[in-house]
Amino acid sequence: MAKFMDVHSGFRDITAEQLQQAHDADVAIQDEEGVTFEHAWADPESGMVYCLSEAPSAEAVQRVHERAGHRADEVHMVPLSV
Amino acid sequence: MAKFMDVHSGFRDITAEQLQQAHDADVAIQDEEGVTFEHAWADPESGMVYCLSEAPSAEAVQRVHERAGHRADEVHMVPLSV
Repeated sequence: MAKFMDVHSGFRDITAEQLQQAHDADVAIQDEEGVTFEHAWADPESGMVYCLSEAPSAEAVQRVHERAGHRADEVHMVPLSV
Repeated sequence: MAKFMDVHSGFRDITAEQLQQAHDADVAIQDEEGVTFEHAWADPESGMVYCLSEAPSAEAVQRVHERAGHRADEVHMVPLSV
């Protein structure tokens, strides 16, 4: 298991409720891929969303996002943190 | 005060010690700009670094990073989080 940061664009004008719904859609199926989404942060002005997760692989993170209907633009393993 | 996520590239092969040093350089001067850096995550493979902070503005975040010698590529206010 490792930490991952993934990045989405295209969420301009996202609301708190929509972010919660998108996160809930991930959480509902994350166990099937062994992923745990820990946090998500959104900028409604630029439409960027950043998600932090614990997962077995970048592919597992992406599979959850794809199945939930919001494929990530990038998924990066972030083994270092402070 | 608001939350900000900023993004750096070009840190390929960054080590845990180098990430800590970069973070310490930010923390050493952050009070002068009213910024609090909460976390940083790094991917040595792609060279991406993500920093989460609490700050009065994106410009304040960038000023700290510039003065510490590592200007961010992007700074996004992230008013929404889950």
